[in-house]
Amino acid sequence: MSHTHSLDPLFSPESIILIGAAHTERKIGGIVLRNLLKSRAGIYPVNPKYEELMGTKAYASVGAVKELFDAGHGSADLAIIIRPASEVPDILRGLQGWTKTAIVVSAGFAESGQHVLQDEIKSIGREGGIRLLGPNCLGVYDAHNKLDTFFLAQEKLKRPKKGNVAILSQSGAVMTCLFDAVRASNTGMSKAVGYGNAVDIDESDIYDYLADDPHTDIVISYIESVGDGRKFINAAKALSEKKTLLTLKAGKGPGGGAAAFSHTGRLAGRYEVFSSVLRQYGIHEVPDFDHLVDAAKALSCQGPQNKARDIMGGSGRRVCIITNGGGSGVLAADECMRQMLDVAQVPEEKVEKLRGIFPPFYSMNNPVDLTAQVTDSDYGLVLDMLKDDYDGFLVIALTAVKGVTTSLADTIRKFRETSDSPIVLYTNDTGRSFKIPFEKAGIPVYPSPERAARALSTLLSVRR
Amino acid sequence: MSHTHSLDPLFSPESIILIGAAHTERKIGGIVLRNLLKSRAGIYPVNPKYEELMGTKAYASVGAVKELFDAGHGSADLAIIIRPASEVPDILRGLQGWTKTAIVVSAGFAESGQHVLQDEIKSIGREGGIRLLGPNCLGVYDAHNKLDTFFLAQEKLKRPKKGNVAILSQSGAVMTCLFDAVRASNTGMSKAVGYGNAVDIDESDIYDYLADDPHTDIVISYIESVGDGRKFINAAKALSEKKTLLTLKAGKGPGGGAAAFSHTGRLAGRYEVFSSVLRQYGIHEVPDFDHLVDAAKALSCQGPQNKARDIMGGSGRRVCIITNGGGSGVLAADECMRQMLDVAQVPEEKVEKLRGIFPPFYSMNNPVDLTAQVTDSDYGLVLDMLKDDYDGFLVIALTAVKGVTTSLADTIRKFRETSDSPIVLYTNDTGRSFKIPFEKAGIPVYPSPERAARALSTLLSVRR
Repeated sequence: MSHTHSLDPLFSPESIILIGAAHTERKIGGIVLRNLLKSRAGIYPVNPKYEELMGTKAYASVGAVKELFDAGHGSADLAIIIRPASEVPDILRGLQGWTKTAIVVSAGFAESGQHVLQDEIKSIGREGGIRLLGPNCLGVYDAHNKLDTFFLAQEKLKRPKKGNVAILSQSGAVMTCLFDAVRASNTGMSKAVGYGNAVDIDESDIYDYLADDPHTDIVISYIESVGDGRKFINAAKALSEKKTLLTLKAGKGPGGGAAAFSHTGRLAGRYEVFSSVLRQYGIHEVPDFDHLVDAAKALSCQGPQNKARDIMGGSGRRVCIITNGGGSGVLAADECMRQMLDVAQVPEEKVEKLRGIFPPFYSMNNPVDLTAQVTDSDYGLVLDMLKDDYDGFLVIALTAVKGVTTSLADTIRKFRETSDSPIVLYTNDTGRSFKIPFEKAGIPVYPSPERAARALSTLLSVRR
Repeated sequence: MSHTHSLDPLFSPESIILIGAAHTERKIGGIVLRNLLKSRAGIYPVNPKYEELMGTKAYASVGAVKELFDAGHGSADLAIIIRPASEVPDILRGLQGWTKTAIVVSAGFAESGQHVLQDEIKSIGREGGIRLLGPNCLGVYDAHNKLDTFFLAQEKLKRPKKGNVAILSQSGAVMTCLFDAVRASNTGMSKAVGYGNAVDIDESDIYDYLADDPHTDIVISYIESVGDGRKFINAAKALSEKKTLLTLKAGKGPGGGAAAFSHTGRLAGRYEVFSSVLRQYGIHEVPDFDHLVDAAKALSCQGPQNKARDIMGGSGRRVCIITNGGGSGVLAADECMRQMLDVAQVPEEKVEKLRGIFPPFYSMNNPVDLTAQVTDSDYGLVLDMLKDDYDGFLVIALTAVKGVTTSLADTIRKFRETSDSPIVLYTNDTGRSFKIPFEKAGIPVYPSPERAARALSTLLSVRR
């Protein structure tokens, strides 16, 4: 996995030139500088008015930095441009020949009708051998090497913890929403890329890079439009063979398509066509924002050894619901059926065995209803007994009764040592303290029976 | 509305006999006693082993309480029975003739296959003129008069704040989940009724009562099965004419139907038939748990003056999305279209006016995109300009940028003084502090663009 990639300088730069650096975090050039200083790269802030910015030597011009590199350092890995759109072409010309990649953060290109200006920077990049990310973009965040080009202060947009989920978004706004939601769901992140108008580097290039990224197991990709359809399908397919890719396509209707067009300046095709092509090539699509975040959480929790299995020649979609509240089990079963999961009866011989263990008022249908009399260990007994009869398990733990405690997390963790079947949890408990032991044990927790069922469906649909 | 109702003794009892009262909250008879002592009713705990329980005089038997009532107090309003199922018939016989209503909390009836026992208590109630709630039920919680028969300690199941939403649930488990979710969504509650196996009092009787309850404007009703279909439809229709009724039917498929059957012992009919009958009679149905909670929140926030209107002879479903993040606006627009809302273009003359006010990079399509440069007052300018052009508004406030603050709550509150169009908010902000000012101003806040869109759709579908 150690072969080089043309996007290495973008994701692991040793040198970063920041054009439009500022001395204060009241300006975005100051926020980005502050964030960049946390990385291990050499930072070269450019600002004609300061000799020093935030304790780092500043340079009066791009030319002044170039002289430095010409004098011995060779070429620069990455330039980040935060200047008005009209200045960007000249800045890029100044980078030609000695800078490998550039992130154009600035807006004011195709998304505002400035197609000529956008075409101009595209040409300059191509001619000068500079790979361009953007314009109109957030750039790159890497939780592992601490590269952070986002123009949003870490206090204002908290970064999720380190983990194995990469986030791609054409839209900076959706990226910030995904950050908040992924963090709230306690999911860990590897890299994030906001690629905006995608004048050069697009989702396909990033998929290609992430396919070999050792920190990334799951890629969630918010897409409004795709420039080159064939390139996209090839890259998405190749990525899906190595990692788990989940796409969320926005702009599904005529109105949405128009909005997506005005927003990033790329043309969005007819959604139905896009969606059917994805299906045809086995590329997973989710219907909405919550589903994307919930699925990422489920996939991130389940280790890569958890493959959907073929039980006794079955569908691979047989699920067992184990609950301590009848009604919640029924709601989960309803959603399982909508998701085309098979809420199959408990095999008769297992029903007999379970009846021998449990009080007569426990219900051994599926959902298995352990009632308000349940104790944590009851769940473990059922899971052990049925582990080879189902492809996945949905556990419902309602905490209003005294028998359900956080030690259930331990019970499920032990089950997972003996089974690689996906397992998800729904609880009514809205506080953090009940959820944390489960999530530490790699068991994804959801706040409604339906969301848990949808996450389980994703786990059984997506093979890792 | 001051006419009497046969269920008055159940909902506003002046006297309550608790059969199976206990001295400690380690027993459910103690939890219920503790909860009952918070009400204004006279409490008569029955327990042969104690002369006093929790500071209240206890009675050795039902007969001993009867003597007291015979001696001058007339009849008792409500008895609550927390004893093994096999004892319930004799207890009820002892209540015949002098007790108006009884809640049979005990399980062990039809839901465990004990149909004969269930039929027996049904007969005893009918012969003795005792209206029965349950068996296998939580009973009644009233946030206004503090009646609380739930066998769940208030520390273990926190009660939502006082408000105008009534919650009905056949399932005790789903009731507890609704309590947690309604509380987490900061929605206020009037009454809750867990009616279990519904041997006598059923959802229809409770609908009838709630139709005239001055504290209730919205009724959310979780249903697994309906005993008398015609009675149900008539009561639901009558309630829907006075209040807003939202139903969630569980047990939608063959598997779910079976689960619902085993759980409360009532037969669940084919879901498709049930659902089409509801539609035919204008009774609102929601598809899942989150939707029920989200809709209750939206309806509770909007005052009763907010009726869906007919704008310029339009559909009554024209919505405007006002965002500071393009992509999130597109996701909201997608869901609006799935909900059959009309994300109609901004009228041309209004586009011109807005262009005169705002910077050129703001987008005046629908979604109206005020970009990361937005300030709180920009939202107010758009709302004022477009208030007569749309039936409802979905505002997206992404807080990673500095121009969005909680003073937006004030801006929207002022708009609502001039317009009765429904308005909902989506924000990425997962903390409480950002949401509270909005919810205090009666603006429902949602954690994803799609959930906000679905709530807006409900507001435009349900006339109050």
